[in-house]
Amino acid sequence: MKTLIIVSHPEIEGSNSQQFLKESLPYDESVTYHHLEGTYPDGEIDIVTEQQLLREHDRIIFQFPFYWYSCPYLLKKWQDEVLEEQFAYGSKGTALRGKELGIVLTLGIAEHNYQVGGTEQFALSQLLIPYQALANKTQMIFLKPLAIYQFQYMKERQKQSLLIRYQQYLTVNNIDSLTERADWFIQQLNLADESFEMSQIIDLIEDLQMEIDEMRLHLDYGG
Amino acid sequence: MKTLIIVSHPEIEGSNSQQFLKESLPYDESVTYHHLEGTYPDGEIDIVTEQQLLREHDRIIFQFPFYWYSCPYLLKKWQDEVLEEQFAYGSKGTALRGKELGIVLTLGIAEHNYQVGGTEQFALSQLLIPYQALANKTQMIFLKPLAIYQFQYMKERQKQSLLIRYQQYLTVNNIDSLTERADWFIQQLNLADESFEMSQIIDLIEDLQMEIDEMRLHLDYGG
Repeated sequence: MKTLIIVSHPEIEGSNSQQFLKESLPYDESVTYHHLEGTYPDGEIDIVTEQQLLREHDRIIFQFPFYWYSCPYLLKKWQDEVLEEQFAYGSKGTALRGKELGIVLTLGIAEHNYQVGGTEQFALSQLLIPYQALANKTQMIFLKPLAIYQFQYMKERQKQSLLIRYQQYLTVNNIDSLTERADWFIQQLNLADESFEMSQIIDLIEDLQMEIDEMRLHLDYGG
Repeated sequence: MKTLIIVSHPEIEGSNSQQFLKESLPYDESVTYHHLEGTYPDGEIDIVTEQQLLREHDRIIFQFPFYWYSCPYLLKKWQDEVLEEQFAYGSKGTALRGKELGIVLTLGIAEHNYQVGGTEQFALSQLLIPYQALANKTQMIFLKPLAIYQFQYMKERQKQSLLIRYQQYLTVNNIDSLTERADWFIQQLNLADESFEMSQIIDLIEDLQMEIDEMRLHLDYGG
């Protein structure tokens, strides 16, 4: 599986969260990092190149800060220009069919405010419906977004946990599968990467243990 | 009441619906038509001017074609740059408080497709939640959007009806009030404007008649 991260941030050098994510990228040739504002400082997008990039990857990630409940304008321009009829949708527009669409979102406001009665009044699942509709229209599989709330207040431990969630979001085939996440950890441990927290591994092993226990219970009832 | 129409369309000269709306503008000094791409051909938005325009108007309209379930990129840039903290939101950001936010939307796809099971899968009320959230954040009153579906297939009669709905959307104080719409018609008739359809007036008179009948019924029961 090849992953394309389309990053949009007009002032990325000054963004601690974006710098952290950039440094967290796995050493993996199957992951392409693509910053729109850096690639196109004059805002003129090369549509042919962008469409080729999309064709060459299986998982497409939109990574951006949440500005007015949507992406920064250059990613919007990218959508309007690159996702043409007969490429992304329409009777012959099947270039994205079956690919995955993920969203990595940084938010300055605390998670609990994204609900009725909170300052934002709406849940993230409501605010991201336009992206879900885009995935529907282009026949892409919409992944659960990875929402990063208030990076600026994160403790070191939380950042380490984020790093792992981010790397998994980019590279694990079936993100919701326990088995695939376990495989991923084993692979990482084999690479003797020092950057992982032991607690994450323990959590995972405990999850696996619980699943096995549950299966045993079913087997007992069945027998 | 002063109305500011912020229009965003990258190719407005070629858009029949936008040209129709432009020609439908009421001869009314209280309405300001403001095309972003025309005003800022290089995309560099004058934030001070824009904030001043907002301050001077009571009803703000975003008028645009629906591109990927959102506005064209220049209006997004406008949002990101003009609606600054301490202007539009935040402890001192009360410049928009109590103003109205309306949306005039042109859509190329038929209305019945904006629902579960339709090609678009989502209702317009779901897709426009980010704008509702923006109104909430800036303490604006969110008006029912004026959605114009498939202008290209509209018959002359439908266009005339649209013209009236559009003018009312721009200038009637309380759009949902029957009395205010009746006042508006009387005012227009006094101006002897020839552009109105008699059927609209008949419809309105019938509505008024029905309301009066209903009130009589209540009075009868009450007595």
